[in-house]
Amino acid sequence: MARISDLTQTQCPVARAESVVGDSWTVLVLRELFFGNHRFDEIQALTGATPQMVATRLKKLETNGVVERRTYSLRPVRYEYHLTKKGADLFQVMMALRAWGEKWLRVEGEDRSIEYVHADCGHLAGLGPLCDHCGELLKREDLSPQWSPGSTAERAAQRAAFRESRSRA
Amino acid sequence: MARISDLTQTQCPVARAESVVGDSWTVLVLRELFFGNHRFDEIQALTGATPQMVATRLKKLETNGVVERRTYSLRPVRYEYHLTKKGADLFQVMMALRAWGEKWLRVEGEDRSIEYVHADCGHLAGLGPLCDHCGELLKREDLSPQWSPGSTAERAAQRAAFRESRSRA
Repeated sequence: MARISDLTQTQCPVARAESVVGDSWTVLVLRELFFGNHRFDEIQALTGATPQMVATRLKKLETNGVVERRTYSLRPVRYEYHLTKKGADLFQVMMALRAWGEKWLRVEGEDRSIEYVHADCGHLAGLGPLCDHCGELLKREDLSPQWSPGSTAERAAQRAAFRESRSRA
Repeated sequence: MARISDLTQTQCPVARAESVVGDSWTVLVLRELFFGNHRFDEIQALTGATPQMVATRLKKLETNGVVERRTYSLRPVRYEYHLTKKGADLFQVMMALRAWGEKWLRVEGEDRSIEYVHADCGHLAGLGPLCDHCGELLKREDLSPQWSPGSTAERAAQRAAFRESRSRA
């Protein structure tokens, strides 16, 4: 039986993709990188993962060429984590997960977590892959997020809880 | 910290989607259902998972309304597993994983595992979300698979190995 971690054991591209991003914490780490949160502490705070969990995911993503580490401070040495072109190309996967989650798992009465404004036409893009308003294929660089009040509050609370846990440590 | 299995703990639709399909074996089970393989043994043979692994994934997918169980035999009682509308709506997620896997994880010299013919225009669809030839958004019902010789052989070998393991048991 094929171990799906071994790319040579199957020609299925879905199984191969899952061998790289088939883990929920990995997807949440990627989510933060797509949001532009490049530092370890931010990723930890906003995913709710332990440092160990974040570290193993970032390391594997780096090994797989999805993430690259960049030095932003020399004393002490500190790194930022950025999506490579291969990583940025997971955009359609992330958007498809978002669309499905918003359509099928949203709690009654909630707003969508994020609405995106489509720069091409200036209107709300909807859930994709095509713009609700102009019908063009949505591209990452053309989308500006508008966070819902609920999601804004949730993420502020996560940051605050993280800072507090740090100050107690 | 939010446990991502608890939908009330986060408003993020990606985290919510991952709480349902954020597991590689779950995705491989879904892949087989999308291919039209509805019986437990087929799913087991073609994913390479153990019966226990298949059973837990199908059960969770059923609990989450992604899969429904249908009786196809009364003596003995036997079930088939089918995607619900909610499950079928994971199409864009599966296609996005496929596209990324084909683009970034294919081994040099290999064919694409599957090429889809787009019924709307009669040409090869490519990796989506838009048809390579006519530019329309790809829908599941408009795509006919053409399996590569390599993938055809791989799946035949998996079925044969499964039958052999059964006859030895």
